Amino acid sequence: MSLEEVARKALKIVKPSKLEERRLKRTLEKALLLARREAERIPGVVDITLEGSAAKNTWIKGRAEADIFIHFDPGVSKAELEERIVKLGTRIVEKLGGKPMLMYADHPYVEGTVNGVTVDVVACYRVEPPGWRSATDRTPYHTRYVLESLKPGQEDEVRLLKGFMVGCGVYGAEIKVKGFSGYLTELLTIRYGSFLNVLREASSWRPPIIIDLKNHYGSREEVLEAFQGSPLIVVDPVDRSRNVAAAVSMTRLSEFVLASRLFLRKPSLRFFRRKAEKPKISDIKRISKDRCFIYAYFKLGEEKPRDVIWGELKRSEEGMRKALERLGFAVYRSGSWTDESRRCLLIFELDKLMLPRFSLHKGPPIYLKDWEHFLDRWIREGVGPWVHGDRLYALRRREEVSAVKLLRGELMSGGISVSKDLMGYLQKAYIGSDLGRLMKAADRDERLRGFLWSFLRARPPFL
Amino acid sequence: MSLEEVARKALKIVKPSKLEERRLKRTLEKALLLARREAERIPGVVDITLEGSAAKNTWIKGRAEADIFIHFDPGVSKAELEERIVKLGTRIVEKLGGKPMLMYADHPYVEGTVNGVTVDVVACYRVEPPGWRSATDRTPYHTRYVLESLKPGQEDEVRLLKGFMVGCGVYGAEIKVKGFSGYLTELLTIRYGSFLNVLREASSWRPPIIIDLKNHYGSREEVLEAFQGSPLIVVDPVDRSRNVAAAVSMTRLSEFVLASRLFLRKPSLRFFRRKAEKPKISDIKRISKDRCFIYAYFKLGEEKPRDVIWGELKRSEEGMRKALERLGFAVYRSGSWTDESRRCLLIFELDKLMLPRFSLHKGPPIYLKDWEHFLDRWIREGVGPWVHGDRLYALRRREEVSAVKLLRGELMSGGISVSKDLMGYLQKAYIGSDLGRLMKAADRDERLRGFLWSFLRARPPFL
Repeated sequence: MSLEEVARKALKIVKPSKLEERRLKRTLEKALLLARREAERIPGVVDITLEGSAAKNTWIKGRAEADIFIHFDPGVSKAELEERIVKLGTRIVEKLGGKPMLMYADHPYVEGTVNGVTVDVVACYRVEPPGWRSATDRTPYHTRYVLESLKPGQEDEVRLLKGFMVGCGVYGAEIKVKGFSGYLTELLTIRYGSFLNVLREASSWRPPIIIDLKNHYGSREEVLEAFQGSPLIVVDPVDRSRNVAAAVSMTRLSEFVLASRLFLRKPSLRFFRRKAEKPKISDIKRISKDRCFIYAYFKLGEEKPRDVIWGELKRSEEGMRKALERLGFAVYRSGSWTDESRRCLLIFELDKLMLPRFSLHKGPPIYLKDWEHFLDRWIREGVGPWVHGDRLYALRRREEVSAVKLLRGELMSGGISVSKDLMGYLQKAYIGSDLGRLMKAADRDERLRGFLWSFLRARPPFL
Repeated sequence: MSLEEVARKALKIVKPSKLEERRLKRTLEKALLLARREAERIPGVVDITLEGSAAKNTWIKGRAEADIFIHFDPGVSKAELEERIVKLGTRIVEKLGGKPMLMYADHPYVEGTVNGVTVDVVACYRVEPPGWRSATDRTPYHTRYVLESLKPGQEDEVRLLKGFMVGCGVYGAEIKVKGFSGYLTELLTIRYGSFLNVLREASSWRPPIIIDLKNHYGSREEVLEAFQGSPLIVVDPVDRSRNVAAAVSMTRLSEFVLASRLFLRKPSLRFFRRKAEKPKISDIKRISKDRCFIYAYFKLGEEKPRDVIWGELKRSEEGMRKALERLGFAVYRSGSWTDESRRCLLIFELDKLMLPRFSLHKGPPIYLKDWEHFLDRWIREGVGPWVHGDRLYALRRREEVSAVKLLRGELMSGGISVSKDLMGYLQKAYIGSDLGRLMKAADRDERLRGFLWSFLRARPPFL
């Protein structure tokens, strides 16, 4: 199949059906009507609008979202705004027949699912750029910019790009993914005109990449100076100080570049379809054979907003990874998982489960003044010391060599930089190296099984 | 005890008794007489002299040596000289009642033990410096220089220094030790006047050390240029192009420096006495517990001169050490041993006996052109590939992980740079990691037991 042919067929995968469109419209109308009625009594509310992919006609099949924005007068304090949006959002979602969940980004918002549509009730301040008072204040300007800039028909190009990114596992700016946001896909489409052109450009990207649609900056150097360390810099057309791609990690960017190259070389619909793999426990056992893992498995006492728990998990994963490396293990890979309710898993693949009982301790050259201290100490403990070349050496005996026991010890003594809120859970967590216990939990939970399978296969979904 | 007191008492340890002196003298006289008589018929012999420690009165207790030098006319070819000295030396040693052994340095010489005295019959050319034709031609000049330069009584200072070096394990220029030669101890004594002064100087040495008794060179830079890489440079008074300390390794030099410091800080007779340790097999088992070793044990088919077999062992030890490191093991220490007859041992202490079954394979950044090759290869074998940061990674499965099997494989395929003459032996050697088999051999051989004990304790004898 040619590229164009594949793109045409892919559109059927990513474009919502008429039925889905009608369902979203109905939910939207109801939600807006309700929001207007309920907001009447709330002081400080100056407007109610629809934002996000529904407003821009760029949502993809199965991901219908209604982002209801409640605009507040800048005179309202942040604390008041937070209190009012929580109350209002809860009431709206309830009246729509959904179950309200408190979410948290820069400030709290309320989410609920209504007729298969994710309804978010979000607060923002009605301000003029660049007088932002909160992170959501830019959103209405984003919507306006995209509506003004996307040419008719380009909505479907955005959809193809989003669908491709979903299929390749790089879509989503949340901490769990650290990938591309919806707004970012829209800006890329505006910049390069079509889905295929975005891929053609991306396939020859070499970071750092700079996209400055409104020429806010005079030179590449100025941009790099302003957004140091970002592999992908897309200057926000409505805010020159913001990088729309700030969340995109080097890993996700590289995966997108790689996926683009592979798709252009051999176009296929599989890039748009997340394989619905149903791994069996026996598959997981087979693929994990002869490999070394250590993991922490625990249950939270209370539910937390998605992004909060993912943030805590990712930070803890990083801390534990460093601790394991400090202890003398090579960490080949690591991963986090949560059912986004209570169950959490941190898992690490290691080179070994036991450290050598004796390790080489390299001392100072005997011609430096530390020699005496080293000699005195190691003549009492360990093996040696001996001289090799101009240096002293000794063998140090380790009391504890088990990765599991060492990690548990470090957690107990607080020697690991993990998220403060998870420390208590991790100290009581099941720390193990035998996957048996984990298999049992995975036997009952298909999502955990899916995570384990993809962690063990260790391939991005497009490979 | 004060330094002087210890030195005085140490003299009793190092100085030969009157009885021993008489015995040496008698053997010397007999040997010289015999040599003169036997050499009469040999064409090209122009002189017969006594050299070495006996001639200089600097030999130490238990190490009486008679170095009989047969001086040849420079007109005699090297091949003729070698043939004649072997014949002559054999006859002399036999007639003295000893068992002649062929030894080899620069050229062959004959050794035998007679009444507890080591008799060496060595050939040299009668030449004027610097017209050396062989390595031994300098020896008579060395003897003359030392006899002219040592003040009366300084012979005992040399003896103390030799005894100290023997006790500390740094005496001997042969490959086995790579330490200080007798002539070197004499030059150090001439330079610094007394045993204690040599130690005082050595205790603050920091390599490279330069000693140029006859000021053959104009500056430090000139000397360093001429003898690059040597930690200790003692310019031969009779040959400006020769470093008397060329054999001294950095390790032996550092040990001597360390021993000097420790002795000056806390003088003791123990520096002169090699502890006559009689390790039991149970001691060896205890100290080797929880440590990882790999060793090659074999028997030579034919006896070889000491220095030849030690040279081959040391070279093979180095080659196997590098091979083990290349295979992924950390080599903490290594050692060689031979009974100087047939039995040989090469032993290595490792961090582990098994490699991890899976190893991390770091691929190229996806932005370099190798990405496709890496992807194609590793998608077929191993686990992954995956993207982390801007790079590709994969896990490679190792078929063989045992140190013993890997080392044996490398030996069989010739992938190790060992001494050519030992390759055949090593390929048929017993390669093991369980010390059990070695213990059995050590049970029957006290010297092997002694070697294992000191290898396992991993301390120079003065610590």
